[in-house]
Amino acid sequence: MIRIGIIGATGYTGRELVRILLRHSRVKIAAITSETYTGKAFSDIYPEFKGVFDLILDSYNKEMIKENCDILFSALPHGLSQDRVPDLLELADRVIDLSGDFRLKEAKLYEEWYGYKHNNPELLSKGIYGLPEINRLKIKEAKLVSNPGCFPTSVLLALAPVLRGKVIDLENIIIDSKSGVSGAGRAPKLAFHLPECSENFKAYKVTGHQHTPEIEEQVAILAGEKVTINFTPHLVPMIRGILSTVYLKLTESISQEDIFKIYQQYYEKEQFVRIHQPPSLPETRFVAGTNYCDISLRLDRRNNRLIVISAIDNLVKGAAGQAVQNLNVLKGWPEGEGLI
Amino acid sequence: MIRIGIIGATGYTGRELVRILLRHSRVKIAAITSETYTGKAFSDIYPEFKGVFDLILDSYNKEMIKENCDILFSALPHGLSQDRVPDLLELADRVIDLSGDFRLKEAKLYEEWYGYKHNNPELLSKGIYGLPEINRLKIKEAKLVSNPGCFPTSVLLALAPVLRGKVIDLENIIIDSKSGVSGAGRAPKLAFHLPECSENFKAYKVTGHQHTPEIEEQVAILAGEKVTINFTPHLVPMIRGILSTVYLKLTESISQEDIFKIYQQYYEKEQFVRIHQPPSLPETRFVAGTNYCDISLRLDRRNNRLIVISAIDNLVKGAAGQAVQNLNVLKGWPEGEGLI
Amino acid sequence: MIRIGIIGATGYTGRELVRILLRHSRVKIAAITSETYTGKAFSDIYPEFKGVFDLILDSYNKEMIKENCDILFSALPHGLSQDRVPDLLELADRVIDLSGDFRLKEAKLYEEWYGYKHNNPELLSKGIYGLPEINRLKIKEAKLVSNPGCFPTSVLLALAPVLRGKVIDLENIIIDSKSGVSGAGRAPKLAFHLPECSENFKAYKVTGHQHTPEIEEQVAILAGEKVTINFTPHLVPMIRGILSTVYLKLTESISQEDIFKIYQQYYEKEQFVRIHQPPSLPETRFVAGTNYCDISLRLDRRNNRLIVISAIDNLVKGAAGQAVQNLNVLKGWPEGEGLI
Amino acid sequence: MIRIGIIGATGYTGRELVRILLRHSRVKIAAITSETYTGKAFSDIYPEFKGVFDLILDSYNKEMIKENCDILFSALPHGLSQDRVPDLLELADRVIDLSGDFRLKEAKLYEEWYGYKHNNPELLSKGIYGLPEINRLKIKEAKLVSNPGCFPTSVLLALAPVLRGKVIDLENIIIDSKSGVSGAGRAPKLAFHLPECSENFKAYKVTGHQHTPEIEEQVAILAGEKVTINFTPHLVPMIRGILSTVYLKLTESISQEDIFKIYQQYYEKEQFVRIHQPPSLPETRFVAGTNYCDISLRLDRRNNRLIVISAIDNLVKGAAGQAVQNLNVLKGWPEGEGLI
Repeated sequence: MIRIGIIGATGYTGRELVRILLRHSRVKIAAITSETYTGKAFSDIYPEFKGVFDLILDSYNKEMIKENCDILFSALPHGLSQDRVPDLLELADRVIDLSGDFRLKEAKLYEEWYGYKHNNPELLSKGIYGLPEINRLKIKEAKLVSNPGCFPTSVLLALAPVLRGKVIDLENIIIDSKSGVSGAGRAPKLAFHLPECSENFKAYKVTGHQHTPEIEEQVAILAGEKVTINFTPHLVPMIRGILSTVYLKLTESISQEDIFKIYQQYYEKEQFVRIHQPPSLPETRFVAGTNYCDISLRLDRRNNRLIVISAIDNLVKGAAGQAVQNLNVLKGWPEGEGLI
Repeated sequence: MIRIGIIGATGYTGRELVRILLRHSRVKIAAITSETYTGKAFSDIYPEFKGVFDLILDSYNKEMIKENCDILFSALPHGLSQDRVPDLLELADRVIDLSGDFRLKEAKLYEEWYGYKHNNPELLSKGIYGLPEINRLKIKEAKLVSNPGCFPTSVLLALAPVLRGKVIDLENIIIDSKSGVSGAGRAPKLAFHLPECSENFKAYKVTGHQHTPEIEEQVAILAGEKVTINFTPHLVPMIRGILSTVYLKLTESISQEDIFKIYQQYYEKEQFVRIHQPPSLPETRFVAGTNYCDISLRLDRRNNRLIVISAIDNLVKGAAGQAVQNLNVLKGWPEGEGLI
Repeated sequence: MIRIGIIGATGYTGRELVRILLRHSRVKIAAITSETYTGKAFSDIYPEFKGVFDLILDSYNKEMIKENCDILFSALPHGLSQDRVPDLLELADRVIDLSGDFRLKEAKLYEEWYGYKHNNPELLSKGIYGLPEINRLKIKEAKLVSNPGCFPTSVLLALAPVLRGKVIDLENIIIDSKSGVSGAGRAPKLAFHLPECSENFKAYKVTGHQHTPEIEEQVAILAGEKVTINFTPHLVPMIRGILSTVYLKLTESISQEDIFKIYQQYYEKEQFVRIHQPPSLPETRFVAGTNYCDISLRLDRRNNRLIVISAIDNLVKGAAGQAVQNLNVLKGWPEGEGLI
Repeated sequence: MIRIGIIGATGYTGRELVRILLRHSRVKIAAITSETYTGKAFSDIYPEFKGVFDLILDSYNKEMIKENCDILFSALPHGLSQDRVPDLLELADRVIDLSGDFRLKEAKLYEEWYGYKHNNPELLSKGIYGLPEINRLKIKEAKLVSNPGCFPTSVLLALAPVLRGKVIDLENIIIDSKSGVSGAGRAPKLAFHLPECSENFKAYKVTGHQHTPEIEEQVAILAGEKVTINFTPHLVPMIRGILSTVYLKLTESISQEDIFKIYQQYYEKEQFVRIHQPPSLPETRFVAGTNYCDISLRLDRRNNRLIVISAIDNLVKGAAGQAVQNLNVLKGWPEGEGLI
């Protein structure tokens, strides 16, 4: 059994990691840490785990971690993770970081989009972007896997098949994403107070969301050239789920059937991407609690606009599930272990 | 036009007061105060009022209040109001306090149920309990009206018609109440964070809710003797509304029709109490945004148990609407002014 | 008092018409019709109106309508309204139709987008498109006002200020709209059954929604040329509200401040359009229950993309409120009567 | 591998059975039937199972069932199941029926509470009431297991420990239950249309719910005498979960600690009952998707009233999960197989 440590285990992604890893036949959770809840049982914080997982939360203790853990998941918040990960890399064989701190390659983008200066820019090039459907071979060898953002996961899987080969106009990529409230984390804030958001819908961080450069960097790699996209997130009055509606302009005339073929071929061997054939369309409930990314598309023949729609569970394929998928990839285990 | 001041105007009850008073033909809102948001427009805090009510929030300023206001609503939190109300009584003709600080007659109950020692016990006897359907004549003359709690309003209106005359067993009053989340106020807390409460139902403060002694004091007055009740509140994943299910034991055999008659006669002249005849039952949506209390009942003939169900909007009949109804009573205005 | 008749009064738009017209000082509701609920009180169908509006529902009876009503609202479903409106025009001075049956000018579009052949194509040219902010003068003289669709209202108000003068590229108009469930009407269907849609988000009718040609016809009039847009509706797990996110490409470099000026000037005299200045953005709760359309915008300077966001209550500004606004316009009454 | 057939597989309980049985290591689902969706894949009806469980739905075909299935779950609606179960008992070794049709022992109660005459009263005595915590030994030998109702499960587990030994007054048992909307099944009806119920709370079938006699029969068995209870169900605007608040009168003075001990001892060896110690209380989210029944209690010392609160997932411990637990019991498998 591989021994797992979860650093910062009491946020929503930590909780999902626990839920998934408990089903995983080749690992055991050996340590969980939390500064806020040190000394409490995990099931005190999340009573759904009472009798199922009552492990005590430790404070961050290097020796304990080194002694007990083979592989570490860091589920610390953005900004904090960058200072902790260099340590973690010395304590364990492999580190999977779920924050945004090692996703961008260009250090100065952190100042612009995250609002802080990166303290470990040299590590950025070592962190492998952990989207298995695109980066599987590199992940296999990675010491530091940087787990993708929830929005970028839903968007990149929707875009990847058509980014190569000039099928679409790279200057006309518009992404309208919608997320459930758990995407904002567990810290209570007025915007997520039920009476303020349960019968409400809104856009936020329009033109300024930190997932924009993450999407652009990965799109550039896939397309082979620098690309500027438009990304607008919205808040949906529900707990889980992201649905992204991606608007693309075809550069030449292709039939809807042929575009479906491109997507099906691209994802033929992928266990966690499902293509919905018309009249079926993705809905967030179809992927809730699962590691699937469901995708479908429609072509508006009238002006050659392609609309691609993808749905994921923001906490699973958009965070903890994908992190476990990455674990499976880097250990060479069946990719669905713990996830199916 | 009577000039109104609202002390502590940025909570949910303050907002509802504004919404209702803007429809009232005989008053104008002359001053609103907030320590947190001093200097901001009310519509900055609640953008739904943009262009409708853009008055600037003042800090608490006695001279300003004295000069500009005839009647004051205090929508301050429990514990704070008790220290401010003595002042307010000197600044204006009449004060309607929406907190719990002047509802109980017995000062020591504050220590037991609210967890603080009351600083102005001598004022307790002067505060008139502002449930117009029961206390109309006293309210008319009151200088200080203590606006009832949301749960007690829904419960007392359900109980009042049968408390006199030994119709029910006073030792067997069980109250199971359910409230929307706005009843917890506007301060964000983990328990009211949407991902924690939107797909959830729970009881809270079982045997320990501070509305228990408020209900018992008023029941004692109506019944003519001391009564101990059981009151259990629950949290419903919705914004507004309280539904109370009250279980009573009949002391003698009466038909369901006759009990309906008792309720109809009792509320015959009341504008804001509606009796639902079978098969109709109250639902919180029927009273949402209104000052109505809807009531119905069913008799279980098998064991002579009477189940009375009442529904109110916790922020209207349970708070701001009732406060305006009290304003109308004490000024001798039509009771529905601003509320219909 | 002008006497109003509502034909098909028991759907959600009918209910909202009643709610609003009861606040209107210059009209009385003289007749309401329903085939399903003939003989029942309106408050039997909607118990929130118990004691407030208990009028009995009639079946459709021409003589009764002719005798009792001066102005008629038709809130019948699409497809049914087209056959009834010719009659209604003979029974009353003015008719405001809330269905889609008289919104399109080109009859053959009904076959293509609504799936039925229009029986009264000659009436299409007589129906005036009832968006007061754009068509006020024509509405004033109209005998038949065709009340706009909910999505088109939110979209056209977001687009109108920049459609003239080549500010934006007319070949790059992408509209991503999100609606609450009441937009689907009151008939229960699996897709709107709470367990199927309350914790869910999805797109629907992608490239095929019947509001597409309605938007295109009105955009063409405003822009002075034929335009093809992309319109994608989504379903939000909430009761009321539409938020539209409109993606536009500027043809020349203009500052965000200057675009705000264009919007402010365009809507300067409009009572029901509010422009949100940064950092404020529209949210559906800010307009819930009101006739407002809230609008804001952001410019992505990196690729000159303009994102305009608008929010309305789909049942008010998107239906019944706008219908009453149209009533006020055609009678020359203050436009906010009954609505503020 | 034991081969399972699910008769009437497309309702919510059928779907949950599939979800749970797919995790079960000792069974395979060999046949699923549906009259409405014959010939469709299960994943066409529930797209979350796409690629996971795509079995084709058969119509009800006795030979096919006999040939392919060892054990049958009947998830047919009440009233239909009674006519089908006699057949099923001839087709397979064991039948677990999830409807209400074989839960009551007294045939005439069906007329009174369900509104139909029972066609197979002789089978009633053969159906074993499938609450494993109470009836485990009988279930082990049963040919026909009648799976308990969702409300009775939550109520009986809350009551069982104190029914013996005169601890409580059997004439004073009041049960106030609250259920999510999935309890009403999958057929769309106005009452469960999202705009009608998502921001709403109500009681229903007050004094007339068909689970009343089911609770009473089982309470009588446990208490050793006939008992009349009061049971009132309510509808919560959420998908899953039941919380029952049970009000009991102690006959003698016992401390809260001692009552906790009674509960803990009673459930000591039970895998699926968890007792929450103060200050913890059950919440429906803690049991969502699981087979747990969480229980806690509080004693109001002022009048010796005991309040017991229990929470289950209505579709799991309240239906499909308990059915699989029964399967495990009757096969002598570990009781948590497929459920943990």
